[in-house]
Amino acid sequence: MRYAVLGTGIVGRTIAGKLSSLGHEVVIGTRDPEVTLVRTDPDPMGNPPFAVWHADHGDVRLLTFAEAAGSGDTVLNATAGTVTLAALEAAGAANLTGKVVIDVANALDFSQGTPPLLNPVNTDSLGEQVQRAFPDAKVVKTLNTMNCFVMVDPARVPGEHTVFVCGDDADAKEAVTELLTSFGWPESSVIDLGDISAARGTEMLLPVWLRLLGVLGHADFNFHIQVARTST
Amino acid sequence: MRYAVLGTGIVGRTIAGKLSSLGHEVVIGTRDPEVTLVRTDPDPMGNPPFAVWHADHGDVRLLTFAEAAGSGDTVLNATAGTVTLAALEAAGAANLTGKVVIDVANALDFSQGTPPLLNPVNTDSLGEQVQRAFPDAKVVKTLNTMNCFVMVDPARVPGEHTVFVCGDDADAKEAVTELLTSFGWPESSVIDLGDISAARGTEMLLPVWLRLLGVLGHADFNFHIQVARTST
Repeated sequence: MRYAVLGTGIVGRTIAGKLSSLGHEVVIGTRDPEVTLVRTDPDPMGNPPFAVWHADHGDVRLLTFAEAAGSGDTVLNATAGTVTLAALEAAGAANLTGKVVIDVANALDFSQGTPPLLNPVNTDSLGEQVQRAFPDAKVVKTLNTMNCFVMVDPARVPGEHTVFVCGDDADAKEAVTELLTSFGWPESSVIDLGDISAARGTEMLLPVWLRLLGVLGHADFNFHIQVARTST
Repeated sequence: MRYAVLGTGIVGRTIAGKLSSLGHEVVIGTRDPEVTLVRTDPDPMGNPPFAVWHADHGDVRLLTFAEAAGSGDTVLNATAGTVTLAALEAAGAANLTGKVVIDVANALDFSQGTPPLLNPVNTDSLGEQVQRAFPDAKVVKTLNTMNCFVMVDPARVPGEHTVFVCGDDADAKEAVTELLTSFGWPESSVIDLGDISAARGTEMLLPVWLRLLGVLGHADFNFHIQVARTST
C-alpha cells in the first residue's frame, strides 16, 4: 500500500515514520517542498525543523500536496485543521477520487488565543466538511482524540483504551481498522461510531483533552470507553 | 447535610433517592409542586410520572424551587440544561448565596431535532453561565458525563472509570469529591480539571456520549481517562 501523508508537522512525521517502518511506501506532502526543507527553526512546540527529521527518513519522499496525493493509494490528512480544506484543495479532487482519505486533524482555532476554539463545532465538523468538499473520497475520521505518539504506539498508554472511527463507507472503515491494528491497536479497542457526522463528537473531545494535558502535564493518556457487558 | 435537588425528572429522582438512602435529609424542588404531582403520563423516555416515584420516597419532600433551595445546605441542579437558569432564578439568588451548587445538567437543545445541539458551546458552558448568574454560589460541575444510574452507582460499569469535577472554589470541590466517594466513586476516579471554564470540555463530551448510546444500545458505560504513570 502506498500512503500519502499530507502535513509535515509532528503528526505527519510521526505517522509517516510509522508507516515507513511497517514497510509501506510513503510520501509526505507539503505546500512547497523547498520552503519546508529550508526551515531551520523549531516549531512552536519545540519540535526540530522538518529537514532534521527528513535526514533520518530519506525513504519518505517530500512532494507537493498534489504530487503526494496523486501517488498515494490512501491519503492521510495530518495538516492543521484550520488549513485542511486549503491543503486538500491544493492536493486536488481528482487525486482523492475513490481513495480512502484518513482525517486525523482537529479544527483548533488559535486566533482568539488559548485555549483554542473549535471551528467548526456542534452543527458541523471538519470531517464532514472534508467529505462534503470531496464527495468522491471515502473519508474516515480517526485518531484525532490523542497525541500522535499514542496514535502509532498505543502501548505507550497502559491498559485498554479507545480509538474511534467514523465515516460513510464501510469498506474504508474496515481498511482503516486494519491499519490501526498494524499500529498496535487491538481490534477490541476500535469503536465504530457510524457515519461521518460522528466526527462532531470526536472533535468535541478536544477541549477536555487539552484540559487533561494541562492537569496531567504530559500527553501520554487516552480516552477509554468503559462498557458494562450487558445492560442491567 | 441537607440537600436540595432541583428537578423532578429521572436524574433528580435518582440522585435524591441515593442521597436519602445515605441518610441525608433531602428535598426536591420543582416549579409548581401541584402540577408535578398531578401528572399521570410517563416522560418522553418512558419513565413513570413523578407521583409514582414519590409514593415510594415519601421522606423526600416536594417543594417549590425557592422553598427547596432555601432549605438545603447544598443545592444540586438536575433540571434540564435549557431551563436551568430559569429554575435557579426561581430558586432565588439569596437561597444560593454561599452554598455549594452542584451542576450535573447538560444544555442539550432539541429545538432543531435530534441529535440535540449544545447551547451554549465552545466559547461558554452551562456551568459558567450558572456561576456568572450567581457569583455568590460555589458552583461545581460534575457527573454530567454519564447516565444517572451510573452517577449514583459507579460499580454498575465494571473496572476503572472517571468522574470529572471543576469549579472555582477548592473547598466546594473537596466537599463534592467527598459526596462522590459516598456514592461509590474511588478517590482515584475523580479528576479535577480546574476552574469552572473546564465545564466547556465536559459538556462537549455529550455528542460522543449520545453516539455511544446509539451504538451500544444502553447507557451502562462511561469515559475513563487511561493515563501512563509517567511521561516517557
